Amino acid sequence: MEQPRPELIPNPAVRRLSLYLRQLEAFKRKDRRTISSKQLGESLGLTDAQVRKDLAYFGQFGHPGIGYRVDELISQVKHILGTDKTWNVLLVGAGNLGRALMAYQGFDAKGFRLAAVFDSSPHLVGQKQGAFTIQPLSELHDTIQKQQIRLGIIAVPADFAQDVADQLVKAGIKGLLNFAPVSITVPQHVSLNAVDLAVQLEQIAFQVSLSGLNKGMS
Amino acid sequence: MEQPRPELIPNPAVRRLSLYLRQLEAFKRKDRRTISSKQLGESLGLTDAQVRKDLAYFGQFGHPGIGYRVDELISQVKHILGTDKTWNVLLVGAGNLGRALMAYQGFDAKGFRLAAVFDSSPHLVGQKQGAFTIQPLSELHDTIQKQQIRLGIIAVPADFAQDVADQLVKAGIKGLLNFAPVSITVPQHVSLNAVDLAVQLEQIAFQVSLSGLNKGMS
Repeated sequence: MEQPRPELIPNPAVRRLSLYLRQLEAFKRKDRRTISSKQLGESLGLTDAQVRKDLAYFGQFGHPGIGYRVDELISQVKHILGTDKTWNVLLVGAGNLGRALMAYQGFDAKGFRLAAVFDSSPHLVGQKQGAFTIQPLSELHDTIQKQQIRLGIIAVPADFAQDVADQLVKAGIKGLLNFAPVSITVPQHVSLNAVDLAVQLEQIAFQVSLSGLNKGMS
Repeated sequence: MEQPRPELIPNPAVRRLSLYLRQLEAFKRKDRRTISSKQLGESLGLTDAQVRKDLAYFGQFGHPGIGYRVDELISQVKHILGTDKTWNVLLVGAGNLGRALMAYQGFDAKGFRLAAVFDSSPHLVGQKQGAFTIQPLSELHDTIQKQQIRLGIIAVPADFAQDVADQLVKAGIKGLLNFAPVSITVPQHVSLNAVDLAVQLEQIAFQVSLSGLNKGMS
């Protein structure tokens, strides 16, 4: 497979790659063996041209007269995303959201293994939660090195998020997923993605407001 | 304020509106009274032109020689997003993620009130969790009508998500936030937003993989 050149690949194409993978896995669960770009696109509201264009950034897939082999394309997309191997991930924040993330079933199957959980609260450090013993932040550096962790999840209150991010970057983390409802900044060599649960609801509220306005229901 | 015409407003502008609101609230916490489009943009990695263009979709804000008044712009953006009034929201799924969402502090301050929690499991129905008594899905319709709920959050396992979405739409829900790691479909008059936690991690893994490749660390 050709090596992708990151500067040429638009972010939306990478996001859609994740959606294709979800959809392919759903087809696989229904025992589908092959699929066309039209069928893959339709299930996500995209044109077949968009699907082919997105995949073309990464190489030649599909077979004339057959389409894509579902199993094969799943492997290829996982390879592109880097999730054909398992990533060790750490979590900072063992509150409610942290506990939900510890129990979240969706990570393992997608190539992510929660390897360690940290919290700054002396009440929580040392506690057992499921398979995890909550560690103090002073052990960040050693744990990251020992377990070869490159990705971190931040699930702490807003006021602590930037400080935790700084500590994670200093300890060698290369990618961060931030759940705290606040913007944080990281150096350019670190990848950052944010999930703000209230923002997601706001977007829906906006759409529902507008469709109400349009019907004169303001 | 002019009424926005939804078909003219690009989705990314609406998403940035949420980010502006977060950032304005952060400035307010630091007792800032006024702010320029440059300062607001810089804090989010955007140009001042982008900030002005985004806000111009919704009306005339800001004051010559002063910039934006922080308090005023917060109110205006909330009004645009429809979050200057409180939205009652229901949650389906009282597992780990559901419990995290029940305890999530970020909703109330943003204009969302979790009003009811449902689960299909007979083991959970009737249980008290914090302020909530878990209700059976058979009470969806009555609760939605009585409490005037228009938004729903789905936090159930993948295999149940589409069925739950269908029931919510039938019971009158207008907007859905889906946390289940699977694509669901809804009729066109219903707004849908999806949060797939593994997708968020995949995007970061992809970026970290690429930056590793670029440094020959594959």
